[in-house]
Amino acid sequence: MDSSDGRTILVVNGPNLNLLGTREPATYGSATLADVERDAEAAATRHGVACRFVQSNHVGELIDAIHEARDDCSGIVINAGGYTHTSVALRDAIAAVALPTIEVHISNVHKREDFRHHSYLSAVCEAVIVGAGIHGYVLAIDHLAQRLSEQS
Amino acid sequence: MDSSDGRTILVVNGPNLNLLGTREPATYGSATLADVERDAEAAATRHGVACRFVQSNHVGELIDAIHEARDDCSGIVINAGGYTHTSVALRDAIAAVALPTIEVHISNVHKREDFRHHSYLSAVCEAVIVGAGIHGYVLAIDHLAQRLSEQS
Amino acid sequence: MDSSDGRTILVVNGPNLNLLGTREPATYGSATLADVERDAEAAATRHGVACRFVQSNHVGELIDAIHEARDDCSGIVINAGGYTHTSVALRDAIAAVALPTIEVHISNVHKREDFRHHSYLSAVCEAVIVGAGIHGYVLAIDHLAQRLSEQS
Amino acid sequence: MDSSDGRTILVVNGPNLNLLGTREPATYGSATLADVERDAEAAATRHGVACRFVQSNHVGELIDAIHEARDDCSGIVINAGGYTHTSVALRDAIAAVALPTIEVHISNVHKREDFRHHSYLSAVCEAVIVGAGIHGYVLAIDHLAQRLSEQS
Amino acid sequence: MDSSDGRTILVVNGPNLNLLGTREPATYGSATLADVERDAEAAATRHGVACRFVQSNHVGELIDAIHEARDDCSGIVINAGGYTHTSVALRDAIAAVALPTIEVHISNVHKREDFRHHSYLSAVCEAVIVGAGIHGYVLAIDHLAQRLSEQS
Amino acid sequence: MDSSDGRTILVVNGPNLNLLGTREPATYGSATLADVERDAEAAATRHGVACRFVQSNHVGELIDAIHEARDDCSGIVINAGGYTHTSVALRDAIAAVALPTIEVHISNVHKREDFRHHSYLSAVCEAVIVGAGIHGYVLAIDHLAQRLSEQS
Amino acid sequence: MDSSDGRTILVVNGPNLNLLGTREPATYGSATLADVERDAEAAATRHGVACRFVQSNHVGELIDAIHEARDDCSGIVINAGGYTHTSVALRDAIAAVALPTIEVHISNVHKREDFRHHSYLSAVCEAVIVGAGIHGYVLAIDHLAQRLSEQS
Amino acid sequence: MDSSDGRTILVVNGPNLNLLGTREPATYGSATLADVERDAEAAATRHGVACRFVQSNHVGELIDAIHEARDDCSGIVINAGGYTHTSVALRDAIAAVALPTIEVHISNVHKREDFRHHSYLSAVCEAVIVGAGIHGYVLAIDHLAQRLSEQS
Amino acid sequence: MDSSDGRTILVVNGPNLNLLGTREPATYGSATLADVERDAEAAATRHGVACRFVQSNHVGELIDAIHEARDDCSGIVINAGGYTHTSVALRDAIAAVALPTIEVHISNVHKREDFRHHSYLSAVCEAVIVGAGIHGYVLAIDHLAQRLSEQS
Amino acid sequence: MDSSDGRTILVVNGPNLNLLGTREPATYGSATLADVERDAEAAATRHGVACRFVQSNHVGELIDAIHEARDDCSGIVINAGGYTHTSVALRDAIAAVALPTIEVHISNVHKREDFRHHSYLSAVCEAVIVGAGIHGYVLAIDHLAQRLSEQS
Amino acid sequence: MDSSDGRTILVVNGPNLNLLGTREPATYGSATLADVERDAEAAATRHGVACRFVQSNHVGELIDAIHEARDDCSGIVINAGGYTHTSVALRDAIAAVALPTIEVHISNVHKREDFRHHSYLSAVCEAVIVGAGIHGYVLAIDHLAQRLSEQS
Amino acid sequence: MDSSDGRTILVVNGPNLNLLGTREPATYGSATLADVERDAEAAATRHGVACRFVQSNHVGELIDAIHEARDDCSGIVINAGGYTHTSVALRDAIAAVALPTIEVHISNVHKREDFRHHSYLSAVCEAVIVGAGIHGYVLAIDHLAQRLSEQS
Repeated sequence: MDSSDGRTILVVNGPNLNLLGTREPATYGSATLADVERDAEAAATRHGVACRFVQSNHVGELIDAIHEARDDCSGIVINAGGYTHTSVALRDAIAAVALPTIEVHISNVHKREDFRHHSYLSAVCEAVIVGAGIHGYVLAIDHLAQRLSEQS
Repeated sequence: MDSSDGRTILVVNGPNLNLLGTREPATYGSATLADVERDAEAAATRHGVACRFVQSNHVGELIDAIHEARDDCSGIVINAGGYTHTSVALRDAIAAVALPTIEVHISNVHKREDFRHHSYLSAVCEAVIVGAGIHGYVLAIDHLAQRLSEQS
Repeated sequence: MDSSDGRTILVVNGPNLNLLGTREPATYGSATLADVERDAEAAATRHGVACRFVQSNHVGELIDAIHEARDDCSGIVINAGGYTHTSVALRDAIAAVALPTIEVHISNVHKREDFRHHSYLSAVCEAVIVGAGIHGYVLAIDHLAQRLSEQS
Repeated sequence: MDSSDGRTILVVNGPNLNLLGTREPATYGSATLADVERDAEAAATRHGVACRFVQSNHVGELIDAIHEARDDCSGIVINAGGYTHTSVALRDAIAAVALPTIEVHISNVHKREDFRHHSYLSAVCEAVIVGAGIHGYVLAIDHLAQRLSEQS
Repeated sequence: MDSSDGRTILVVNGPNLNLLGTREPATYGSATLADVERDAEAAATRHGVACRFVQSNHVGELIDAIHEARDDCSGIVINAGGYTHTSVALRDAIAAVALPTIEVHISNVHKREDFRHHSYLSAVCEAVIVGAGIHGYVLAIDHLAQRLSEQS
Repeated sequence: MDSSDGRTILVVNGPNLNLLGTREPATYGSATLADVERDAEAAATRHGVACRFVQSNHVGELIDAIHEARDDCSGIVINAGGYTHTSVALRDAIAAVALPTIEVHISNVHKREDFRHHSYLSAVCEAVIVGAGIHGYVLAIDHLAQRLSEQS
Repeated sequence: MDSSDGRTILVVNGPNLNLLGTREPATYGSATLADVERDAEAAATRHGVACRFVQSNHVGELIDAIHEARDDCSGIVINAGGYTHTSVALRDAIAAVALPTIEVHISNVHKREDFRHHSYLSAVCEAVIVGAGIHGYVLAIDHLAQRLSEQS
Repeated sequence: MDSSDGRTILVVNGPNLNLLGTREPATYGSATLADVERDAEAAATRHGVACRFVQSNHVGELIDAIHEARDDCSGIVINAGGYTHTSVALRDAIAAVALPTIEVHISNVHKREDFRHHSYLSAVCEAVIVGAGIHGYVLAIDHLAQRLSEQS
Repeated sequence: MDSSDGRTILVVNGPNLNLLGTREPATYGSATLADVERDAEAAATRHGVACRFVQSNHVGELIDAIHEARDDCSGIVINAGGYTHTSVALRDAIAAVALPTIEVHISNVHKREDFRHHSYLSAVCEAVIVGAGIHGYVLAIDHLAQRLSEQS
Repeated sequence: MDSSDGRTILVVNGPNLNLLGTREPATYGSATLADVERDAEAAATRHGVACRFVQSNHVGELIDAIHEARDDCSGIVINAGGYTHTSVALRDAIAAVALPTIEVHISNVHKREDFRHHSYLSAVCEAVIVGAGIHGYVLAIDHLAQRLSEQS
Repeated sequence: MDSSDGRTILVVNGPNLNLLGTREPATYGSATLADVERDAEAAATRHGVACRFVQSNHVGELIDAIHEARDDCSGIVINAGGYTHTSVALRDAIAAVALPTIEVHISNVHKREDFRHHSYLSAVCEAVIVGAGIHGYVLAIDHLAQRLSEQS
Repeated sequence: MDSSDGRTILVVNGPNLNLLGTREPATYGSATLADVERDAEAAATRHGVACRFVQSNHVGELIDAIHEARDDCSGIVINAGGYTHTSVALRDAIAAVALPTIEVHISNVHKREDFRHHSYLSAVCEAVIVGAGIHGYVLAIDHLAQRLSEQS
């Protein structure tokens, strides 16, 4: 934690991502949520920042977690799963806390159903990374860390 | 409570409204949720009715609260935040309890993004008040009280 | 007039509202336009402001009346009836005079035909009150008065 | 008037119909508004009813005329010209007076621009006759008279 | 036939009109198809023309009947029922025979479901009469006869 | 027939269902129309009602069959195939005879092309069963029988 | 449980269905959720399978319940109420667990508001049964059981 | 027939094509259906295949003819006229028989009304030829023959 | 007038343009309507033609003025303000008088709200000039004069 | 060239067609652009006309080539690849040179993504041939040659 | 050049405008591109500014030319032909160089196909002149010159 | 080159990106194209791969460059600028060469105009990175390199 300069990134995973690795592997790959969190933690450590992880299938809990990040986090990485396409409340939560936020999707949503092409979150996030598999979380951490280092 | 003739109005605040006053003040002003509830309570008292308050970021808790109002409330004032635009389940809850309900929005949603122009709730509410700031809650209490007095 | 501090609110009623009380009472109730104006006047008096009333079925006369309000009114309450949904010119008039304006609709337009769900006026008004019956005019006066008192 | 049993039909002609016979004869033919009114009068006389005629390019005057028909007319024949496609206020006026109303268009609007295919009036009129040239007014009078005779 | 000058009008009734009088009387009234044909015949006789009647639930038979009219009819009155809104083939048949055709609908289709507001036939018919009940057939005969007399 | 209490259910199969079992088995399975009718008959017999079967590729014949059901049937089970998505006339026939009708589709139409997601029939049927394979006919008979037994 | 061969069907009821029987009985009937569960249990017993019931107004709890079904259930019957039309997350949960799932709606959603005509769930369910009242749950159990027996 | 190697192509002409040469010659030219069939026959003969011709205004007869082609035809050339744009049933018939099918339109439908720009058939046909006049049938025969020769 | 060869151009200004210079100067600039008319007059004089000016907030008066121009004007310059986007009647008036007409907008409407991107007038005008400020009127006069000189 | 009577057909191939045979062979087959040009040349020779070939990935070069065809070509065969669906400029070029033009697509675009179903070119071409593989070029040459022979 | 104060206006003509005068004269007139450039030059000379001309059918060359204008031009007049309606890249080029730009179209695009009613360029240009024939270039030069003189 | 194992990544920059750093810095930042290429080169070197750079405002040159990459590149990073939203041809080029491709946008296109929310390229790219500024190119190189290392 020392090496993280007191900086923490909140990594939010939304509905059904607890099943990662067991759910539709053709679409989502065989890595598990634990793999995602381990890779993200490693990337954060490389940049000298800490990670806090939350996963929930409840949209209200995701909003609560984002609210709490206002107190002690410097940025957010979020894969909101199915709520990406339907939740104005989640969008409002991200806008409300005003932390730099990176939206991540494991699969390339643009190759899938039309309703996955629109995200309520993108316009209030700083950047969006889709289709890079679980490596996308690492890229997001890299980008947040680079951005935070520019500010310090 | 004596003076409220046993009548109670449920005042429901949805997602992100717990951050009121700290969140995007250019849009939502600097008053807090406590201010809203204090003003609403004062207005209710003027009309001799009581208030019960609930705020939650969880759509399921909002629905539960509306269901419970069937037992002991005479009307509802609701600002459902981002769920306004996306939740058929919330609409169904309001229709199911069949209490006179007033929809309130602090900001003038018609000046904002297109997706905020449509409300799933309006068609099952009795009245809608938008853009009057937190004064809108007082106007809603005034209207509900006036309507209840017509019935008694 | 003394008690109104020289302040006047223009109350504009648009097409067919001259028939209020006789027209489709299931939708619009049995109160007449005279009742509306009497209630609005009483509300204004309570707040120490005066009212001026205009009703016309001619969109041009509504625009003219709004223009004239620039000289001596502090705010506008408008129920533009059917022109609400079709008149860009009326919208431009409200924007041009730049007075705080409250849009009122007696019935809950969101329960009616789709074409009544869109208002050209809402985005240039400060607040919108729909479905509160003729009490909506009183709420609008209350809100304008409260807002004007904040400025003085 | 004796022979009209005190019954009168209001025949309303909207914008640009004063130019009939001189305006775009390929679309509207060479008969004038006077011809229309003469033919309508003759048809009404055959059925023992009277006619009152109004033509205006001002939508407000059309609404006023429809309102006044409540006092002494038994039905309305209306060709609202361009206002047909754009005026909710005119629709509301027809609905408000609740007289049996026949919508007429001289040309077959369905062969013309897309925006002429939708009428705000049709859903509040009893019947619609399009494309029968100025004979359409006679058919409308015939139908109103037949309908009125059923009631008496 | 002598009195019809050899002129015949084809009166086409489409699907479900065989049930007229027994089907949804709130929408279609209590007159039967026989009543329609009797009234149409009487109107035609008044104008010195003959009528030929066809009713079928088969769109192919309606097309065949329209084709055959080329040989011996001077005009067509058609109520194509549900095929009105869905059949390009029927439209093409009317355009192909190039006889003056009047489209009739007993009910005011503009007061009903959205899909009944569009007719594939209107743009290839000369005139359209909707909402005049079974009297609409008489009006259509009147108009066709008047038009034919102009040509002779 | 004794055991059917004089009650008969009309089972209507529309275009291309004569090819069942030979046509696109990946979508429709390998059972034939004879299998469907045998299963439906067995289900009806269990409930003490009779079945009458009709299959046609001609929309007019389907309408005729539905009309005839008014005389001696107590309900209808219909799989209208491709006409489901295009025929207002068929919808009108079902509405006209006013018998309780169950719409059946063998495949889950919601997994297929967009144009198969809309049915003109559903809004005039009592219930809709899709994706249950040919077992759907049995479920439909079960439901109709249960509903008829409630009435008797 | 012996007789169920260890097989269990999860029966999921979504928001507002706890109010069944008391909520809008004109639309949903007078049977209660307990009635639904009793009938479903009886049907399951007839087929030698067990039922587990869950009802929640919280979309996250519905997703959690579906996830848990992976361990010990053979199929799912789901009436997701208002979430049917808005929840991609719920759709993803059903797709993720890959159990045969039957979507049920008590009322015929196709006769109601347009926004109820689209279901995010249908394309990932095996079959859909709408409008059969609470009997629809029994039909769903019947179909799941029949399907499971084919596999064993 | 000897020279056709037992191979036959079904040439299907839909509604109104019986009037070819007499109907709207500006659009469809002056050649008759007999001319079309003579040219097609000649082309087929050049390739050593036979032709069978069917023309009908009844969509059901077109479907029946396509079904029958399964027994003895090697391919289909179809100009479905107005049914092209409206008939899912016809599309399903072509998909069901799974013969190589060429869609032909005499006129260039892309220069005509918008509703003629979409064909339900194209996606289940192998190739589409539009705007080549009656020569399009010859090109279609040429292509089918070339394709059949590749297979043999 | 001598120098204008008896030629006159009607310059029509629609709703809210009487407020020019005082209304939303960021959008419309600080020049007044009097400035517009002075510049237009000067331009006309340069070309030897006269100008007649009309401004009204009443759409009916604009139509009347256009009708009167038939008698003594050679062309029209029109800025119809908000009626541009909503008035079919105004479009019909321009088409009816058949004078060469130039549509002018002071601001670049394409940079503003979507509903300002469509004009009912453009298709019946000869040319359209937008975004050139009040200089646009001068350009319009220049163009009309150049065009009139070509004819003489 | 003698045998081509001085007549030349320009064969235009657009973007990515240089990769034919190597690019997505499942969609486009294994024939190369050289094969296409050899077959087209052979077909042209059979009809006594010459061919000139151009392929470019640059839309401007395609337009230039079409312009140049005005000087010495009698017709055009064009497969504009991806520009088909996006280029108004290419459409305008074809319209500008006013040579008979045949649009060709190797694959059946109607079986592919929605955006490939619309062509800007079709309405200014004489005929369109899709889905016939590279044989489509031969059919296009055949048709152009037949059409040219009709003129000579 | 002396008289142009070192000021130069770039006049850009897009695809197919090299054919001006020979291409579809009913739409575009008989003047050639040389005529356009001569008239523009004359107008520029009157205002003491110079002109540089570019015409290309290649969208990339148009972008290159606009980029180069940053170095030595004070404004741009552009008729982008068909690229107007399809090129975001061209729009971005105009926005990037940030020179005052006037969009010109020779014909009145609002009288033509729907796809010509939308321009990607208008929102980044200062003014738009359509339908004034080649005189539109002169008006554009006049306006640019007037605007430049205001700045100096 | 040694260290790049013979592996090369093509980095493609489309229209207007040559102006990077000078064009709309509020949107695109102050870094130049040379900065982008230097950073990308450094990132590639870290991963032991080489880069080749191309920038063009000509869509045809972008397509040509992508085609050439088939011979000697292992992957592509592309920022197609305005062509992203309009070019099917570019999409087809990417699909044709079948190299792993990463789409990059410097700004967050989801915060900008609606027409920038859709990309023709995304569905044929492997991953998409938007809004990360010029750092996005580095992330793209990182991801391509990681992906390539998985394969070797």
